[in-house]
Amino acid sequence: MSTSSASIELPRIAVTMGDPAGVGPELCLRLLQDAEVARQATPIVFGDAGVLRRVAQQCGLPEPSLVVEPRWWQQNARELRQGAVLDLQAIAADEVRPGRVDAATGQASYRYIEAAISAALSGMVAAVATGPIHKEALHAAGIPYPGHTEIFAAQTGAARSCMMLTSSQITCSLVTTHIGYRDVPGQLSVERILEVIELTAEAMQRIRGRPARLTVCGLNPHAGEHGLFGDGEEERIIEPAVAAARQRGYDVQGPLPPDTAFLPPRRQITDAFVCMYHDQGLIPLKALAFDTAVNVTLGLPIIRTSVDHGTALDIAWTGRAQASSLVQAVLLAARLAVDTAPEYLRARP
Amino acid sequence: MSTSSASIELPRIAVTMGDPAGVGPELCLRLLQDAEVARQATPIVFGDAGVLRRVAQQCGLPEPSLVVEPRWWQQNARELRQGAVLDLQAIAADEVRPGRVDAATGQASYRYIEAAISAALSGMVAAVATGPIHKEALHAAGIPYPGHTEIFAAQTGAARSCMMLTSSQITCSLVTTHIGYRDVPGQLSVERILEVIELTAEAMQRIRGRPARLTVCGLNPHAGEHGLFGDGEEERIIEPAVAAARQRGYDVQGPLPPDTAFLPPRRQITDAFVCMYHDQGLIPLKALAFDTAVNVTLGLPIIRTSVDHGTALDIAWTGRAQASSLVQAVLLAARLAVDTAPEYLRARP
Repeated sequence: MSTSSASIELPRIAVTMGDPAGVGPELCLRLLQDAEVARQATPIVFGDAGVLRRVAQQCGLPEPSLVVEPRWWQQNARELRQGAVLDLQAIAADEVRPGRVDAATGQASYRYIEAAISAALSGMVAAVATGPIHKEALHAAGIPYPGHTEIFAAQTGAARSCMMLTSSQITCSLVTTHIGYRDVPGQLSVERILEVIELTAEAMQRIRGRPARLTVCGLNPHAGEHGLFGDGEEERIIEPAVAAARQRGYDVQGPLPPDTAFLPPRRQITDAFVCMYHDQGLIPLKALAFDTAVNVTLGLPIIRTSVDHGTALDIAWTGRAQASSLVQAVLLAARLAVDTAPEYLRARP
Repeated sequence: MSTSSASIELPRIAVTMGDPAGVGPELCLRLLQDAEVARQATPIVFGDAGVLRRVAQQCGLPEPSLVVEPRWWQQNARELRQGAVLDLQAIAADEVRPGRVDAATGQASYRYIEAAISAALSGMVAAVATGPIHKEALHAAGIPYPGHTEIFAAQTGAARSCMMLTSSQITCSLVTTHIGYRDVPGQLSVERILEVIELTAEAMQRIRGRPARLTVCGLNPHAGEHGLFGDGEEERIIEPAVAAARQRGYDVQGPLPPDTAFLPPRRQITDAFVCMYHDQGLIPLKALAFDTAVNVTLGLPIIRTSVDHGTALDIAWTGRAQASSLVQAVLLAARLAVDTAPEYLRARP
């Protein structure tokens, strides 16, 4: 199988290194060693080779075997057939203090993302899988976005997008993401919920290969219990969105009481849950599927997946990080890329 | 073992039948047959014998073997040594339409609760375990409480109370319960959070037999990420409450990001999570421990536990209901009752 892989063009996936002071560099080093990733994709780490070498030494991991410069990459990207590091030289290795929140590492993490988005938009890579960034470091660097999802939406000019987290146990997409608890009700609208239902149904149909079954959660305890709690958000906003989605032919149920929506019987008949706010989706997802869930940004003109965890500053550069979520993110990116790629690629064994 | 049980006075537990149109009657019939319950407690079902007989016939379950009248009960309650039904005659069996929300069944369910609270306050029972009621039926009957917790707090004159759900996997207590999503931030205060921390720590110490370790959740995504999201509720309200609790000697950590607080490593070092709102606690609890969790009201002058599920109107009177949560609720009530009872009771094998 490995001898024939040279003749088949696997999808090239840009993998951003994440914040250099976090676990991202270690995850990328492990990813480049992963046999399953090598069989399904050609991962290109968008990061700093100097940082990766220093982390490799500190963690007792192999150094990257292939490092390419931006100028070479611009000319020859489409020739790359093996995992590599694109050395963006955004920060010097000795400037990084592992485990510390720093504007300089926040700035570097943003540089990797910009370069990866640009490579995806120009077709040099088939998809982007992102390593963990630190929102405070990004903020300290003056980057005006709260997270990856918002950066990708802005820089690809996406008219609509949403964040979805998927795993073998449970998949959740989010109507609102990185905003305060009290700002959520004001951000809910029939249009936005309908948009997230459509984006989610279409993405899950691509992943599952058949029409998707969605469950929509309410906002209030017991989904408001028919107006007893809350401000009627279920009746005024969520139910009309579900009705409109059904009229458009989507298989969608709800709004359901959020605390019982995620029970095993409902999970079995649901391909994805549409959740009103960040923790409504992420609490059950992480409780049930931490370490294997993948974050996908839906609605972009490019494919983008991500780890579902943060920078884990407390174990940065220690050799104790698990790459399973990044591996899954790259494998899902490759699968989505192949499913939307020409027939000759889809037909590979 | 069963021959010696007659000589030992097991704690009498009032078990309210819940809404007659729901699964409560079937659960009570199953409970009266449960061997483990019979070894640990003397359950007295506060309900309607006519309804129970009709449900028994419909579900193919044994009818109650001992039914007592209120007048007999008032005189002889302390003599009861075996499971029984206290026939409160709050509703006629042929008036109940299974699976339907109805003011009459809501009213009956409230009568059972009132009688059970009164029996507990006068010491005729050692504790109350409540079956599922329907909040809309209660509301239709003009009962001015959103749920059990509020009824018990009002009718026992409790100065402070809170709802806690406990299971072998995870325990959560709630700072706010049955209010709308958007009303939560306005209900958070340093005093209230400190109160819930104290009630929870004391209850878990009784249950575990050693000082309890608590984890407090934030309100906003990522616990506000140091002020990036939300209105500073973590810094202004939750952190001062945690600091005050530590000063009083409690082992408490937080506020933690709600989506990662419930991961396995944290669950292993946490006896109970203090949650800011209903679904923050109930989503992970039900995802991880549905069917076995028990609801305990803390801070009351009496012991009160409850099933952690609703009336399940869709399967009412069908013989398909699982009594595991009610069984656990009665067993926990009995354990709490024995732990606060005289030494001779605690010493039983």
